Amino acid sequence: MHFTQHEAHAEKDVPIMVRGRGVHLWDAQGKRYIDGLAGLFTSQLGHGRHELAETAATQMSQLEFMPLWSYAHPPAIELAQRLASDAPGDLNRVFFTNSGSESVETAWKLAKQYYKLTGKPSKHKVISRATAYHGTTQGALSITGIADLKQNFEPLVPSTFHVSNANAYRAPELTAGALEVTDRESLERFGRWAADQIALTIEAQGPETVAAVFLEPVQNAGGCFPPPPGYFERVRDICDEYDVLLVSDEVICAFGRLGHMFGAEHFDYQPDIITTAKGITSGYAPLGAVIASDKLMEPFLKPGEMFGHGYTFGGHPVSTAVALKNLQLFDEEKILEHVRSNAGSFRGTLEKLLNLPIVGDVRGEGFFYGIELVKDKVTRESFNAEESNRILYKFISKKLFEEGLYCRADDRGDPVIQLSPPLIAGQSDFEGIEQILRGVLTEAWTLI
Amino acid sequence: MHFTQHEAHAEKDVPIMVRGRGVHLWDAQGKRYIDGLAGLFTSQLGHGRHELAETAATQMSQLEFMPLWSYAHPPAIELAQRLASDAPGDLNRVFFTNSGSESVETAWKLAKQYYKLTGKPSKHKVISRATAYHGTTQGALSITGIADLKQNFEPLVPSTFHVSNANAYRAPELTAGALEVTDRESLERFGRWAADQIALTIEAQGPETVAAVFLEPVQNAGGCFPPPPGYFERVRDICDEYDVLLVSDEVICAFGRLGHMFGAEHFDYQPDIITTAKGITSGYAPLGAVIASDKLMEPFLKPGEMFGHGYTFGGHPVSTAVALKNLQLFDEEKILEHVRSNAGSFRGTLEKLLNLPIVGDVRGEGFFYGIELVKDKVTRESFNAEESNRILYKFISKKLFEEGLYCRADDRGDPVIQLSPPLIAGQSDFEGIEQILRGVLTEAWTLI
Repeated sequence: MHFTQHEAHAEKDVPIMVRGRGVHLWDAQGKRYIDGLAGLFTSQLGHGRHELAETAATQMSQLEFMPLWSYAHPPAIELAQRLASDAPGDLNRVFFTNSGSESVETAWKLAKQYYKLTGKPSKHKVISRATAYHGTTQGALSITGIADLKQNFEPLVPSTFHVSNANAYRAPELTAGALEVTDRESLERFGRWAADQIALTIEAQGPETVAAVFLEPVQNAGGCFPPPPGYFERVRDICDEYDVLLVSDEVICAFGRLGHMFGAEHFDYQPDIITTAKGITSGYAPLGAVIASDKLMEPFLKPGEMFGHGYTFGGHPVSTAVALKNLQLFDEEKILEHVRSNAGSFRGTLEKLLNLPIVGDVRGEGFFYGIELVKDKVTRESFNAEESNRILYKFISKKLFEEGLYCRADDRGDPVIQLSPPLIAGQSDFEGIEQILRGVLTEAWTLI
Repeated sequence: MHFTQHEAHAEKDVPIMVRGRGVHLWDAQGKRYIDGLAGLFTSQLGHGRHELAETAATQMSQLEFMPLWSYAHPPAIELAQRLASDAPGDLNRVFFTNSGSESVETAWKLAKQYYKLTGKPSKHKVISRATAYHGTTQGALSITGIADLKQNFEPLVPSTFHVSNANAYRAPELTAGALEVTDRESLERFGRWAADQIALTIEAQGPETVAAVFLEPVQNAGGCFPPPPGYFERVRDICDEYDVLLVSDEVICAFGRLGHMFGAEHFDYQPDIITTAKGITSGYAPLGAVIASDKLMEPFLKPGEMFGHGYTFGGHPVSTAVALKNLQLFDEEKILEHVRSNAGSFRGTLEKLLNLPIVGDVRGEGFFYGIELVKDKVTRESFNAEESNRILYKFISKKLFEEGLYCRADDRGDPVIQLSPPLIAGQSDFEGIEQILRGVLTEAWTLI
């Protein structure tokens, strides 16, 4: 099991899922659940799409495997073209992987070799944000900003540094009381402050040693932090000023999660690299992709040069064929438009929960939300470790599942409930989610 | 493209493969190739197996995705049971990944956390062998022993150390002239010497800092080095003596490549962890698996403990369903028996090439061979970089492909041609391979 306390299942079996259809999952006892997490921020088109199964079977019968090591095959070529065409600006070069972790590894390795090839070999360090999750292979894990996930595996790849994230709800704490976010103007000030932490760290490390900044458009771990207005504009300026690459880690935010094909497009900034996985196939097959700018490719086009990196299964024919069909279905079913026109009502429905005493904040973007739970709405006091374990894990998490909602109660930062339904969800699903949450959170409040 | 010099394709297109059937591949021009590499040591059952496509489509329509993060699904459960039952000794615990790199990362992280949980937190270092390839994510890359693949990406995860490999053909060089392998007894002495390098390195580093030794049953990179007799027996003793985990990296050697389900079984040694990927699905879907001993699982079963590691797509329902069917077909078609009864004739057919002046050595095991090319058979003099580039890459590699043989000319160590056909290959395929090699290598000799 992945990220699982096995002892917790000593008495009670692990839930076994056996079937999916649309926004629903069924367990081995035949019980139905609303999939409030899209698998794991992955099932964009929902479950049980026969078109994708047919595409996979056809490709598998034709050419089931061929590595991209000096060879190519049609679905990888076509998908690379599609991604290059969809990605913003001059992001025209695609490298396929099998997972988000492998995409993050690839982006960092690309940044390292790029600077070595362009006469700046000491630029290798990475800056990312506190509590941000960027994967679990040891390079990606080093970029991850969650100490609890890292300390058992030290030493990791050296030279990663973490700055404050953009958690506006905790702005007073993060800025040592200097900033309370009460209006748009103070939110902008907070965004400027948060972005400037990156510049300060580049200065502290020495700009000639820093290769890249890794940021999610909306940071997931910690509890869904959208960027304050002006944040990415300022980060882009900082990256340009210090010749540091801006990597938009969109393993979660790409492919419609925020209502656009890419999160960078949604927030209107231009990264040097976008990392993806998860939703690229709507989860129907393992695949990741890294999309890099023409500028980054240039030094690799010289005679004798090579990006010394690869994965046997990266760009697998079946996975890339499925991804292509997935994106075609996005077009045919106007998935991006659906998210954009329903994001407001999803937000509005979840915001009804703000009238519960335990709900401190509802925040997010598109079909991607975090609901922060607090002991005191006025002081924003959070739960201690014992309460978090007792209320979040032992009660809320189990109870939501019992009530038929598959989602995630997370305390990698402050306790939040994470919601990220399939992108085909509509108002009745939002209301179903809200109703279950309302009941469980009301009961949870009585346990504090 | 992965591991590809793009400039080399500036004038000539990358070959595009469009179809596979049995041991053959077809390119976009309709030209047929013998697949002498099983994709990339991957396509055990050969290409175009409709049963696997049907299995994939059925699973994809039923439950196309569910992460193993606190949940489970039937194909992952069944495949874990099958692998635990097939793996030697008490290797009964299975963790799924998406690739060989991710499997190696997982094994190292498991070793690190295991020793932290059992009161030996300073045991984190890894020992592996010179020229060995163990993957490209930064933890796996750190274990890899090929400087050319690493130097553009330094710093990597610290604390990996490389000892001599077991290249018996180069025994005199490796042992500074002390050992010339001429008979079984001197081969055993060389094996003992090579294994003892591990003990020396553990002593030099301090046994209380070393967590694991990563070894392939037959080392691929460098040119297919089977273990000398007694090698793994001695390594096992050393690992026991110093409380160091023995990780058998079987990304290539598992699933029939050597004629047994696992390489450790073939050579009769008991590892603490086996890492796999590639052949587990015969390449029909991306998947990897790490199989660990009951002993390693024990500390993770205590209340509150967790292996803090996971991959969204790890143990994907479609990939695990395909792997299960793949192993069922192994049974039904007696694939292991086929390899065991044909390995001798494959070897014999390739050994005919020893009468060519350029062929210095033919070595390997099962359906897995390396043919080392030399300038002088008597002195074993190898090619310099210029010759290697001109003869190996620019001529042999291209010419073999033109003649209809897909295989790999590799110079990560001394120049070798790597052969690893699908496990369904038979005598007529071996002869086809030998004939093409004979023609091309005869012509190559005239270019020296």
